[in-house]
Order: sequence, then C-alpha cells, then structure tokens
Amino acid sequence: MELRERALKFHKDNKGKIALRCKVPVKNKEDLTLAYTPGVAEPCLEIEKNYDCIYDYTAKGNWVAVVTNGTAVLGLGDIGAAAGLPVMEGKAVLFKSFGGVDAFPICLETKDINKIVETVKLMESAFGGINLEDIKAPECFEIEDKLKEICNIPIFHDDQHGTAVVSSACLINALKITNKKFEDLKVVINGAGSAGIAITKLLLKMGTKNIILCDTKGAIYKSRTEGMNKYKEEIAQITNPDQEQGNLEKVLKGADVFLGVSAANCVTQEMVKSMNSDSIIMAMANPNPEILPNLAKEAGARVVCTGRSDYPNQVNNVLAFPGIFRGALDVRASEINDEMKIAAAYAIAELINEDQLREDYVIPEAFDLRIAPKVALYVAKAAIETGVARRKDITPEMVEEHTIELLRQGL
Amino acid sequence: MELRERALKFHKDNKGKIALRCKVPVKNKEDLTLAYTPGVAEPCLEIEKNYDCIYDYTAKGNWVAVVTNGTAVLGLGDIGAAAGLPVMEGKAVLFKSFGGVDAFPICLETKDINKIVETVKLMESAFGGINLEDIKAPECFEIEDKLKEICNIPIFHDDQHGTAVVSSACLINALKITNKKFEDLKVVINGAGSAGIAITKLLLKMGTKNIILCDTKGAIYKSRTEGMNKYKEEIAQITNPDQEQGNLEKVLKGADVFLGVSAANCVTQEMVKSMNSDSIIMAMANPNPEILPNLAKEAGARVVCTGRSDYPNQVNNVLAFPGIFRGALDVRASEINDEMKIAAAYAIAELINEDQLREDYVIPEAFDLRIAPKVALYVAKAAIETGVARRKDITPEMVEEHTIELLRQGL
Repeated sequence: MELRERALKFHKDNKGKIALRCKVPVKNKEDLTLAYTPGVAEPCLEIEKNYDCIYDYTAKGNWVAVVTNGTAVLGLGDIGAAAGLPVMEGKAVLFKSFGGVDAFPICLETKDINKIVETVKLMESAFGGINLEDIKAPECFEIEDKLKEICNIPIFHDDQHGTAVVSSACLINALKITNKKFEDLKVVINGAGSAGIAITKLLLKMGTKNIILCDTKGAIYKSRTEGMNKYKEEIAQITNPDQEQGNLEKVLKGADVFLGVSAANCVTQEMVKSMNSDSIIMAMANPNPEILPNLAKEAGARVVCTGRSDYPNQVNNVLAFPGIFRGALDVRASEINDEMKIAAAYAIAELINEDQLREDYVIPEAFDLRIAPKVALYVAKAAIETGVARRKDITPEMVEEHTIELLRQGL
Repeated sequence: MELRERALKFHKDNKGKIALRCKVPVKNKEDLTLAYTPGVAEPCLEIEKNYDCIYDYTAKGNWVAVVTNGTAVLGLGDIGAAAGLPVMEGKAVLFKSFGGVDAFPICLETKDINKIVETVKLMESAFGGINLEDIKAPECFEIEDKLKEICNIPIFHDDQHGTAVVSSACLINALKITNKKFEDLKVVINGAGSAGIAITKLLLKMGTKNIILCDTKGAIYKSRTEGMNKYKEEIAQITNPDQEQGNLEKVLKGADVFLGVSAANCVTQEMVKSMNSDSIIMAMANPNPEILPNLAKEAGARVVCTGRSDYPNQVNNVLAFPGIFRGALDVRASEINDEMKIAAAYAIAELINEDQLREDYVIPEAFDLRIAPKVALYVAKAAIETGVARRKDITPEMVEEHTIELLRQGL
C-alpha cells in the first residue's frame, strides 16, 4: 500500500490517536467519594488557599497544551487549526511515547495574535507547560513573547527551539569530526522564518561569531531595507559582522556550515564546492532537502544532515522536545531558557561517544531510549543552575530516574 | 483516616486523576511515519478538503471539553477555575469510567461571558461536545445559549440538564409508587438557580401543568417585581398557573412533590405534613438536604430522594451525563435536545422494573453497569427521531452495543 493509503487507514482504523487514561479506578462508592464528591472538595479548598498545591493534587504538572492556529502545519502551510488536528494529536503521542508527558491539542481557529495569547492565558491553570506548534512567522514570535510575559509556566515554540536544539546537537558533533570550533566558523543559514531565526540566536549563544542569515532576498545586513521586519532587523544587529551582501550563492563562499530551513534544491554542487574545506551541510527542508546528500558529499561536504529519516543524520525534533519538557516539568521550571536548550543540545550530542562518531552518524536515532532521560537530566540541571527551577526538593538525577521509569512503564 | 485526609492523600499519591493514553504505538520508524511526518499530512489534507473527515481521522468524535470558570464549584461557590480543577478532572474520570467518553478540563480564569463563549468556540475543532460545569447562574444560561447558537457540536450544562434528567427519572418511578400522573401534580421547586430552572422546564415538557418555582423571596409569579431576572421572568410566564404568592411554607400546602435544589434544613416536618397525601420529597441540597429523610418519612412523605450516597434514592448526575454524551457522540448529534433528555430519564427509570420498585429504590445505583448502555440507546433513538443525528449509518442498537463494549474494555 502507498504511504497515503497506509496513513489514512492508520488514522481511520484507530479513530485518531489519543484518548484519556484515568490514573485512578472508580469501581465502588469509596472511589467515587474520593475522586468526586464529597472528597474532591478537599483538594479544591487547599488549592484555593494556596495555589501551588495544584501541582500536588491535580495532574497539571504533567500536562502540556499543544497549541496551534494551523497557519504553518508541517510543510503544508496555512491549512487551518482543524485540519492541523492530526498533527497535534501526533505531537501529543510523541510527547507521551518519548517523554512520558501528557499533552493535549488546543487548535485555535483564529489568526488574531491577541486572541491566541488571551485564550492560552485563560486556560493556563490545567497545564504545566505550553508547546506552541505550527504557527507561522512572524506571528509566532509575538505570541511566544507575550505568553512568556504573562504566563507562569514554560512556553516553548518547538518549530523554533526544538529545531535549534537538534541542529545544534548535530553541529556539536560535526565540529568534532571536522576539528573546528564554534568561535571560528562562518555559518550561513538560509530561511529567516521561525526555525532560521531561532537557530541563529542559539548558535550565537553557543559561541558562534560569524553567522549570516539569508532569506529569499539574500543576506540580511544592517542597512538592508527590502523585505525586513522587526525580527530580521534584530538579527541584522547581531549577525553578519562583515556586513556581507548578496544572494545565498555569494555569501556561501568560504563558509564552514550551510544550514537550510528553506526550500528544495536551492543549493548546487558548485555552491558546496565554494565553501571552506570540511564543510558541513545541514539541508533540512522537508520533504526535499536544499541539496541531496549524495550530491553534497560528491561536491566535498564532509558531514551532511537532513530532516529525513531515509538519509543518515536526521535532524528530528523528537530528539529534543520530550526530554526538554520532561526536565522542565519535573523541576517545575518557570521557563525554558537558552541554558536549558544548550544543555539539551549537548545531552543529545554526547550520546554518541568519540568511538562511535562518524560522518554519517553525528546524531542518535529517534528510538534510542537513552535520549529523553539524558536530555531531561541536563535540562533539569541547567534549570536548577540558572535559578528557574521552582522545586527545590528534586535533583537532576531524580529527574533522569523518573524519565527512565516513565519510559519503562511504556506510558 | 478522616475523609479529608483520605481525599487529600488519594489526590496527592496519584498526582491528579487524568493522563493521556496513546491509541497507537510508536515503536519504530513505520509507526512514526504514519502517526507523524510524513504520513500525518494525508489526513490533514483530507480534513482541509472536507471538514467532516475530521471525525474519521482524529479522536475529535470522542472528546468532550469539561468547561468551567469556577464560579459555582460543588457547594463551594466561587473558588476560581484553578481551584475547580480537581472537580473537572473528577468529571473527566466519570465520563471515561461510566461512558467511555474522553474528557478534558478547560478551566477558564474569567467571569466574562463573552470571553468564555469565544474561547470555547475558538477551540471547538478538537472536541465532539462541550460539557459546561460549575458555572454560576444566571451567567450559565447565557453562555449555554450563545454557544448553542455558534457551535456545531452539542453543548450541555450538566448542573442544569443532568440534574433535571436524573430528578425526572426519580419522579417517573415515584409516581408509579404513588399512582399519580405528571398532569395532575402540584410540584414546588425550591431554588431558582441553574438546576431549579432546568428541572422546571424539563418537567413542563414531560407534562406537568402546575409547577411553582421558589427562590429565597418565595414563589415566582407573573407580577412579581422583587429579585427577578430575565430567566425568572420567563419562568413566571410558563409556571404557577394559579399565581400563588408567598413563601415556600405557604405554597407547599397541598403539593404532591417538593423538589429542592436549595439549602439545608429549609423544609420542616410541619411543611411536609401540609402537603398532599403520598407526597414525594426530593431534598437534593448538598451536603445537607432540605430535610433529613427520616424526618420527612416520619412526617408522612411516601418517597424521599436526596443527593447523598449514604441515603436511599440518590439523585446522582453520573447516572445521566456519561450515557447522554455516549449516545449523542455516537450518532454525532448536533445538539442534546429535550427529547433526548426525556428519553434519558425514562431509560434510567425503566432500569427498575415493577417487581423491584420500592419506596427506597426508585433510582438505580451509580455502579449499575446497565445504565449507560440503556441511556445511550434511548438518547441515540431520540436524536435520530428528532432529526439531530448527523450519522445516518448507525442504529440505536449499535450505540448500545458500542457502549457495552467500551465499558467491558474498562476504558
């Protein structure tokens, strides 16, 4: 059967992918008395007196809302919130399967930034965290910023930060192979949407000095006027130290790293050849990469990553978000900050030790069960060290153990 | 251990009551390909083309949002949406345990009617139905009315309609014992909040001619001016045909049925004695009834019901809402209309046959597993007969079978 038929049958046979699981049985009057009236009044009153008790007496601490407005679903574009539901259910399944995190789809039929922000804020109390998903740029930036300001739980836009974390993990290992350092690199990132901007910012934080972000109009630089917005303006201030101008082909010359979150086939073999020796190509456009791995290799690229599971070195967000949320939820982090994201990137990268590291194996496979526990451990540690962990009675090692236990239970 | 300690321990040990269950495994690349990218794009595109496919390819059709703003939680009053979360999780557990319905708490921190309505509308696409819960009157009426107008899925305020259905079920059987008919009754309902008004309207639909609804100012009648609102005005037009005035004590004289959704101990033995012979007392104030059953019996009441599980004849909403939603969801009803509610009441009442019927057994126990299948059967039948069932390929018997199967699976 073709993928199309298999996928439709899979969804239809199961009538979707998510259901409720009761953590408590209701089999007799005593159960009912405790789970519902009159017993349930007691935790309600405790929470009314002291809000933080909500983490003790409810499931809030393990639930994440997967919030979308359907404006940038997969590579499909603006198909609307309802049509995005299969993706959001899928995301919920990944949260649960890979991180033991309970997640629920909140599909909002609106493009109004303020309504999205207000809606999420209104329903915040039942959730331990918010995962923004498939919301198009630049709206996603404003939504994320506003929510971070008004909410008391972590807000994480996976299309930005999950992608940034996993690409960084690849790069950490690719640099080991090529014997290069973040500080010395020239990195060209193609695609100034949510992922491109987030990757740029994270790589700067990780020590990269020379990054040039390109969009369809070419390199972004300080005095550029065409096709700018306030997010690109901000990027212009902090990147491209040599103020390089021109199209992708031009600025890619002499670069060490090409990182694409853009469009199929926009990189030629000639362009790869114009790069520095031991070049690293991360061609993450989906489903068709900026350049096919064999062509890139043939043109001299040392390490090639893509977004696809049928090539080596798949940059797959599922390596990051389940463990990141696991760690953040377990220490009750107030936010997911850059230190936590960088810690997650190193956690993923370090799962491949020096002996195993090869040009076609710089990043672990999605089904490597060591990933989420290690990511959660590192993220928890970074949260504690940066002072955003609100639970003081838990160590990173306890978070790691908890994650292993959840995965063992096959939740 | 005291109930308080048991209830707190129960909630704390389990960290709340609800979790996600994945209906599909994600154990290898093929699973990931189907449940998430690239396969998941196929159902998305189908839904984009034809919205109704969302019922085929997602879990929408079995998910109900339990929506509250926390303004009338149990008997606790306005404790806020967050403090109401344990109740909403409890409700979700009851939906699942008693009806195989997946339910999720949406706790909205606002008292603004329009914001609640707008929020629910925005997130409608992931849900097959909306259960409003613990929202105070009169706001609950307006919220329900507005949502019914703009949403394409059933909207059901359980505090109103669930209570009305179960009280009606009790009354159907109590009338068999007392050999009376709805048409001949004088019914006095005390408490003009959400439940009192809904019970009044449903009993009128079921054939009752003489109902007097009382609030703290006494009987509601056409020319009354004090303490009225538009909902009481509407009630004044359709009830109290003799325009009786005065307090509860006065209008209760000669009544066949007292139905209280009001306050503890507001009915005396003298008031019961003033009622018609073979009187029926439904004293549903929680936790303390309007009159204790033994006192009511002693004063001559023939049948006494309360809201408590430690007395006979408990009027418990869990008898109704799981089966009602089960039936409505299975036939994909566009609404839950009065015919469906009345059908549910008869389904519940008929579970006790003439041989079993006794003064202290007019309503089945919550754990009678026959309830939800029979309620779902009757509700589905009524939905089909009244033309609100959008699925044409399903019979009431199939709904009954499906409900039995879900309960058997112990979902």
